[in-house]
Amino acid sequence: MYEWNEIALQIAKEVEKEILPLFGKQKAGEFIGVSPSGDKTKLVDKIAENVILNYLEPLDVNIVSEEVGTVDKGSDYTVVVDPLDGSYNFIRGIPIFGFSFAVFKKDEPFYSMIYEFMTKSVYEAIPGKGAYLNGEPIKVREMKEGAVALNFYTRGRGIGILQKIKRTRVLGAIAVELVYLAKGATDGVVDIRNYVRPTDIAAGVMIAKEAGAIVTDDKGKELKFSLSAAEKTNIIAVNDERLLKMILDTIG
Amino acid sequence: MYEWNEIALQIAKEVEKEILPLFGKQKAGEFIGVSPSGDKTKLVDKIAENVILNYLEPLDVNIVSEEVGTVDKGSDYTVVVDPLDGSYNFIRGIPIFGFSFAVFKKDEPFYSMIYEFMTKSVYEAIPGKGAYLNGEPIKVREMKEGAVALNFYTRGRGIGILQKIKRTRVLGAIAVELVYLAKGATDGVVDIRNYVRPTDIAAGVMIAKEAGAIVTDDKGKELKFSLSAAEKTNIIAVNDERLLKMILDTIG
Repeated sequence: MYEWNEIALQIAKEVEKEILPLFGKQKAGEFIGVSPSGDKTKLVDKIAENVILNYLEPLDVNIVSEEVGTVDKGSDYTVVVDPLDGSYNFIRGIPIFGFSFAVFKKDEPFYSMIYEFMTKSVYEAIPGKGAYLNGEPIKVREMKEGAVALNFYTRGRGIGILQKIKRTRVLGAIAVELVYLAKGATDGVVDIRNYVRPTDIAAGVMIAKEAGAIVTDDKGKELKFSLSAAEKTNIIAVNDERLLKMILDTIG
Repeated sequence: MYEWNEIALQIAKEVEKEILPLFGKQKAGEFIGVSPSGDKTKLVDKIAENVILNYLEPLDVNIVSEEVGTVDKGSDYTVVVDPLDGSYNFIRGIPIFGFSFAVFKKDEPFYSMIYEFMTKSVYEAIPGKGAYLNGEPIKVREMKEGAVALNFYTRGRGIGILQKIKRTRVLGAIAVELVYLAKGATDGVVDIRNYVRPTDIAAGVMIAKEAGAIVTDDKGKELKFSLSAAEKTNIIAVNDERLLKMILDTIG
């Protein structure tokens, strides 16, 4: 029906054109309203979301996004989108942020793209067919005991994990961090603050899974989330069952 | 005597030319030897360091660097350098890494530059005269209670801090993180793992201080370090006395 990869890339490039001149500028972070989920809306988020809406509305598909909430057109297709994952980083001039775009058909994963503006990297997933970086297949890496790197968000829970791994990262852009897992730049992404929303992780989870990641909730059960902007969840995404077990044992 | 800003920028640009083609490539991380401080030397670090040595050796200045250790020429000037801060990020394709170059004259801070390859940002300090980003003066930001962001490296010590701040970052490139403090992108940089070396922080500390940061050890005393590649230290660098007090009270 739609060429989702072309649509997604076209939107990503248009968002890029509109927002990149604002990178690191205070103006990008000015508050200009409140989103349906109760967060303050910043100028750069609004600009990025307007681009998305301009492209998607004529397609008559359902849309789920942080700033507009849910637009239900009764379509088979639902696009779950975060036009600027890592907007704090963007505003402050920290070069880790991306465009996150996930398509579901009758609630089943159908296609995803994450675009990293800074490095011009295009990550994609076609469920059942694999994950790709700039058109080349990607896989999670093999976990090596004694050399584990983990992107780990906590407010204190499971802190013992820090003593069992070699490297920690907290980059502030979870969609991008999930594709770093997918391309083998880290061994896992864990957020157990009950903080992330489906809009933050839908595309990243699809890509990480297609690259071979195991993705669960904080009980080790397969992660499920509704296609809604309001819900919050925990997530554990790793490249190895043993790492999953260590994390679950430590958080108890 | 020397135009250190010109020398530093020339070296940074030459390092950039040599290493950027290796960004995100596995080859960049191949081990090719062991440094004087006992760490394994990776290909990209070696390439970057060779550029530095080629430029600095004809100047007959002292050099302190991770890979070569200390070169003492009996000069008044000592250059403390990390040609690629954040080399793990670089190798794995995570776009946060930089060039760190600090000059001391008779052991006193004299000039520093940090160059962020990805965003082409030049950060400088001229002690007593200020800190600059691309030639424009920069200052630490005002800390706002309830909105504190902290770059925080720990293996568990002081973990209560996570409950007292809004945002955490662990970016894996401490020199770059210190200039993010200097430009007001975060409120503090804390590493209490007894892990960082003078080569990692010498330039970043000089720039952060000139931008108004308070820099101490983990007891709240002014941070002192020798110009040596072997030493390891703790560091607390913040924009506000109240934040320093909270951190010291929590780590005990």
